Amino acid sequence: MGSIAASEPTGLKDDVLLVVVPFPEDEKWMAKLRAQHPGLEVRWATQPPTFEIDPLPKETYDGVTLLCALGPHPAEMLQKVRFVQLLSAGADKWVGSELYKKPEVTFCTTNGAHAPQIAEWVIGTWLMMNHHFIEYAEEQKKAKTTRLLHLNVYDSPGLRMGVLGYGAIGRQCARLAQALGMEVYAYTRSEKPTPESRKDDSYCVPGTGDPDGVIPTKWFHGASREAVNEFLAQDLDILVLSLPLTESTKYILGREQFDILSKKKTFVSNIARGEHIDTDALLDALREGKIRGAALDVTDPEPLPDNHPLFTAPNIFITSHVSWQTPKLFPRIQDVAERNLMSLSKGEPLINVMNREHHY
Amino acid sequence: MGSIAASEPTGLKDDVLLVVVPFPEDEKWMAKLRAQHPGLEVRWATQPPTFEIDPLPKETYDGVTLLCALGPHPAEMLQKVRFVQLLSAGADKWVGSELYKKPEVTFCTTNGAHAPQIAEWVIGTWLMMNHHFIEYAEEQKKAKTTRLLHLNVYDSPGLRMGVLGYGAIGRQCARLAQALGMEVYAYTRSEKPTPESRKDDSYCVPGTGDPDGVIPTKWFHGASREAVNEFLAQDLDILVLSLPLTESTKYILGREQFDILSKKKTFVSNIARGEHIDTDALLDALREGKIRGAALDVTDPEPLPDNHPLFTAPNIFITSHVSWQTPKLFPRIQDVAERNLMSLSKGEPLINVMNREHHY
Ligand SMILES: NC(=O)c1ccc[n+]([C@@H]2O[C@H](COP(=O)([O-])OP(=O)(O)OC[C@H]3O[C@@H](n4cnc5c(N)ncnc54)[C@H](OP(=O)(O)O)[C@@H]3O)[C@@H](O)[C@H]2O)c1
Ligand SMILES: NC(=O)c1ccc[n+]([C@@H]2O[C@H](COP(=O)([O-])OP(=O)(O)OC[C@H]3O[C@@H](n4cnc5c(N)ncnc54)[C@H](OP(=O)(O)O)[C@@H]3O)[C@@H](O)[C@H]2O)c1
Repeated sequence: MGSIAASEPTGLKDDVLLVVVPFPEDEKWMAKLRAQHPGLEVRWATQPPTFEIDPLPKETYDGVTLLCALGPHPAEMLQKVRFVQLLSAGADKWVGSELYKKPEVTFCTTNGAHAPQIAEWVIGTWLMMNHHFIEYAEEQKKAKTTRLLHLNVYDSPGLRMGVLGYGAIGRQCARLAQALGMEVYAYTRSEKPTPESRKDDSYCVPGTGDPDGVIPTKWFHGASREAVNEFLAQDLDILVLSLPLTESTKYILGREQFDILSKKKTFVSNIARGEHIDTDALLDALREGKIRGAALDVTDPEPLPDNHPLFTAPNIFITSHVSWQTPKLFPRIQDVAERNLMSLSKGEPLINVMNREHHY
Repeated sequence: MGSIAASEPTGLKDDVLLVVVPFPEDEKWMAKLRAQHPGLEVRWATQPPTFEIDPLPKETYDGVTLLCALGPHPAEMLQKVRFVQLLSAGADKWVGSELYKKPEVTFCTTNGAHAPQIAEWVIGTWLMMNHHFIEYAEEQKKAKTTRLLHLNVYDSPGLRMGVLGYGAIGRQCARLAQALGMEVYAYTRSEKPTPESRKDDSYCVPGTGDPDGVIPTKWFHGASREAVNEFLAQDLDILVLSLPLTESTKYILGREQFDILSKKKTFVSNIARGEHIDTDALLDALREGKIRGAALDVTDPEPLPDNHPLFTAPNIFITSHVSWQTPKLFPRIQDVAERNLMSLSKGEPLINVMNREHHY
């Protein structure tokens, strides 16, 4: 993530903003944007929260220069677009799109807007599984008092979390892990040897995350499998996958990696993308007890077809790409979009700008 | 909790230590204690983890001067006891006992040894309920992909936690809440107007808690219902009960208090003792939607009889006094006991000494 000056300070008076979101029209916000940017035309369309986009009527796209959307809309309809504000932190669904191929279009993600609730998903599922809450909920349903004292409970002080992808989400996971008394090891693509390089200037919800990069006690980096394997060998109690899906992170966990993780029986939490993990290798690792368990908000394939063996694998908890959910998400996305529109109009640096070399 | 000099530096050469715990004999530890205190006799008995004690054979009690136990053993068998190390943080099961009536006996709790896992229980159940993990586990069992996007998810940034009893457990709950981006209001019995007074010198697992008392943004105090009611009126999103059961904290939440909490529909988490809450008032508050939900590790009555209405009340999660559980608990208790035995032998101040005026 970087920040660049994206335009001359020409204002947005000749611009047309199209907002396509899974939320009802927010007239107050539209009025606010129009007031902030006299002349700006704002259009709204509501679509369900999936990356597979049904094209909108042609006239909705007419003259659009600024787009705010979840998945890629047809480039041929959007010839004049110069700025795209994604609704998602991940950009993998855009990278192959025709619109992304135009180098003159600036893409910004909404990293940081999802970090609090996704880190809650990671730590919540970790605590739930370590404390056997689902088993207790089963007992409660029977309306009987049962103390499952034969089940091993793990508490977290002294344990070690490895964060593969120390960005917005990874940093809030680290913050929670540290509060639990855990040690954190961080992994990034680029080397971060100095305090300055460890900072993250993405959008950050106040009072969360690790914007200064001061939590990890050890840093690892690189895009090679060797570097990743070395990280996985660090006796991690839990490994969090919080990196973008790119060519170098596809199937980053396969049989070889689960063998490495088996030394410590590392618990694996994946909230990034399903294609980071070779599903068959994960299934075997769970069945053979190579890892203590797994929590997945994303799967490969996704959605998981009915009766897929992952559903019933031992020590697994699965949800279907919902960890981003909170009524506060859209206000945060609006906050990012608003800041970027303001910066665009003033010719100032934007936030959460996608890196055109690494595609995230 | 305080620390006092409990004896002259006479060593423990004429002492007999009886350890009664729900754990198998730890010969290594017994050998260590004997090596640290030449002449000390160490006896061991294993009993289940309940406060209702079955008396041991008479000869086991013979000559015992130092006792380490969960519940009160018969005082008439323990005429020579001068020091009792409880296994629990709560001392309410001891306060009415014959042994406690002897002013010359020093009682120490193990506060702090339970704080990490109990705070994990509090925050884990809070996250689980806010993110609907139990509902997702139900869907997973059907081996079908379902996105329960109609269920409201709450994430925690910007919410407010009230901690009623800002001791060892409450401080670790606060640490986690702060990491989630929440604000914390603290309540204690005694006034804590200065930085010095806000410190807690109880046993504390490294890297956890708030020993310096720097997390809360607002402090409340007092033993009166008026003071408590004022605290409950502070628009709390979650209220954690983490105070000792004493005369002034029995049924501290009744109808009047749930009416106050109904303003913000405060979620209630009780890991202290069941008798803090009027169960009928709680049931009505849940049924009438006065509060958003409740998580209870302790209940009144306890154990909850089969088919008790609490089991099936709306928005409730119940376990049966198990939140203390972790394989690390006994090592921590041993750590507290070891420190106190060493201090006893040297005539130095003990930790976690019970206050004989307030009985916790
Ligand atoms: N489940 C959901 O609903 C959901 C919601 C939001 C996001 N996500 C997924 O989560 C991902 C992470 O989101 P975020 O906001 O935390 O992203 P972010 O702030 O961009 O952070 C990404 C991190 O991954 C690192 N990274 C990049 N390439 C890597 C590689 N080849 N090997 C190892 N690490 C690499 C980056 O390193 P540098 O610091 O060197 O750049 C950075 O530290 C998104 O890309 C998206 O796919 C899922
Ligand atoms: N569920 C379980 O398995 C489990 C396990 C361990 C403990 N517990 C329960 O949890 C309780 C708390 O444990 P802890 O280790 O955190 O205790 P602690 O360190 O002694 O802290 C108790 C806190 O409660 C406050 N307090 C005392 N009387 C009060 C009153 N009348 N009104 C409001 N606050 C009052 C104290 O105030 P001051 O700071 O002014 O003294 C202190 O801040 C124990 O007493 C026990 O009953 C349950």
